[in-house]
Amino acid sequence: MACEKIGFIGTGIMGAPMAHNLLKAGYEVAVHNRTKVKADHLIAGGAAWADSPADVAKDSNIVITCLPDTPDVEQVLLGQKGVIEAAKPGLICIDMSTISPAATKEMGSALAAKGVTLIDAPISGGEIGAIEARLSIMMGGPKKAVEKVRLIMQAMGRTVIHCGPLGAGQITKLANQIMCIHTIMSIAEGFAFAEKAGLDLETTLKVTSAGAAGSHSLKTLGPKIIAGDFKPAFMVDLQQKDLRLVAEYAEKLKQPLPGVALARQLLAQLQAQGRGRDGTQALVEVIRQLGQK
Amino acid sequence: MACEKIGFIGTGIMGAPMAHNLLKAGYEVAVHNRTKVKADHLIAGGAAWADSPADVAKDSNIVITCLPDTPDVEQVLLGQKGVIEAAKPGLICIDMSTISPAATKEMGSALAAKGVTLIDAPISGGEIGAIEARLSIMMGGPKKAVEKVRLIMQAMGRTVIHCGPLGAGQITKLANQIMCIHTIMSIAEGFAFAEKAGLDLETTLKVTSAGAAGSHSLKTLGPKIIAGDFKPAFMVDLQQKDLRLVAEYAEKLKQPLPGVALARQLLAQLQAQGRGRDGTQALVEVIRQLGQK
Repeated sequence: MACEKIGFIGTGIMGAPMAHNLLKAGYEVAVHNRTKVKADHLIAGGAAWADSPADVAKDSNIVITCLPDTPDVEQVLLGQKGVIEAAKPGLICIDMSTISPAATKEMGSALAAKGVTLIDAPISGGEIGAIEARLSIMMGGPKKAVEKVRLIMQAMGRTVIHCGPLGAGQITKLANQIMCIHTIMSIAEGFAFAEKAGLDLETTLKVTSAGAAGSHSLKTLGPKIIAGDFKPAFMVDLQQKDLRLVAEYAEKLKQPLPGVALARQLLAQLQAQGRGRDGTQALVEVIRQLGQK
Repeated sequence: MACEKIGFIGTGIMGAPMAHNLLKAGYEVAVHNRTKVKADHLIAGGAAWADSPADVAKDSNIVITCLPDTPDVEQVLLGQKGVIEAAKPGLICIDMSTISPAATKEMGSALAAKGVTLIDAPISGGEIGAIEARLSIMMGGPKKAVEKVRLIMQAMGRTVIHCGPLGAGQITKLANQIMCIHTIMSIAEGFAFAEKAGLDLETTLKVTSAGAAGSHSLKTLGPKIIAGDFKPAFMVDLQQKDLRLVAEYAEKLKQPLPGVALARQLLAQLQAQGRGRDGTQALVEVIRQLGQK
């Protein structure tokens, strides 16, 4: 499959190992990043460097973006020296960032006017998933384009699912983030209660994780809480950004989500304490604080 | 192990199959229940009938209670014609109800004055777990007594864990229920959002259950929500009762639990709508209603 020429924009914590996996799979890859030094090891590994998103688009038939937030993607795709300036008809853009579903649909229309197809393909699985090519990839877009790039996605992810039309990938990712924050609340309140009641937390973890209270978060983050390890598997700041996207889209849908609203307040408390770069398991600290003298 | 003489008080949905499993394991069992007819099939299966809790205690060296709520256990153990009236020193009482940890400790003291040891051993796993002897049993009490009855517990459950001193079983169960309600909130808000956004719920379930949002509740209750099946695996009324116990004990501990507080309000809405006997997955209906015209 090395016939595709892929452009990759955004070689950060997630993007860099993803681009690396594309190189490893034999694809020809051109990279661009705001901070060039973060792409140096990819260039050393065989990637070409492009000076701007437009430069990336000029020689690619697939352009992948993996960027922090909605305005970044808008700038890279539609802004000055953006992808749209040099895109040839037939180009497929795959945005793997987690951003606004509404903005995604708007960008899709702008690109379609130039004959460019946009696919949204946000990811789940964290840095380790990216490194080990075990990401879950939630794709939205026209079936034909999605199937055309499926092999490329499989070089980066293990679960590649077509969720529906453009935007459906982002919406599925947001539903995923809603579910995640509740399972994190689950351990935060469960552990704070158990601890204050004087239970042995190892025993509590063992009993609860085996039964109806079991969750992926409990299994992976529970031991970290017991060990006092607040290093991020997923950062509070990023969770909060995703829940802002949830809140914005839920407001558009007129769908109140009282649990998410509460979780956002508690995460905001952590951020106020300068702990935005802690892992989401730090939510237990806020619950603990509520019960402190 | 058929040398033990076991009394079993409370042969309801959970208690009846548990007592049945004790008979099946070869134990000599005397039963008592407020409504005798619910014990008839156990009597037909070889259990003796006792007219009161005191009668149960008279001829037993182990008395098990499995009752709806705190006052029921207090009445049966300490009330008129209660266990305490006929208990001989050395009797071990095992309360497998889910009730107040504080009341459990108080009853333990009252029984200790008569030479009776109380163990709390609340269960998780539902009616099916009870029938198939696959319950999780969370035990609190002195190690020696707990070890003495472990084999009896293993006739009813698969996971039998000593959580700590008297009350620790109840507290562990409450921590478990805290975690459960959050994982149920997880699917309630996640599915209501996904549905209102027009996603295919089967696909959403597939994507989310495989990753970081995965939970036991999502796996077991997610398909029920999609199928519109609100039959109870665990009833709203019972979940609400358990969360009342959580709230009471958390207040005693001075440990605020804002997520649990919110969930209780939403469950109360379901109860107000006459849906207390639906399964807890009906929580999704309340979230849906918040977004309805």
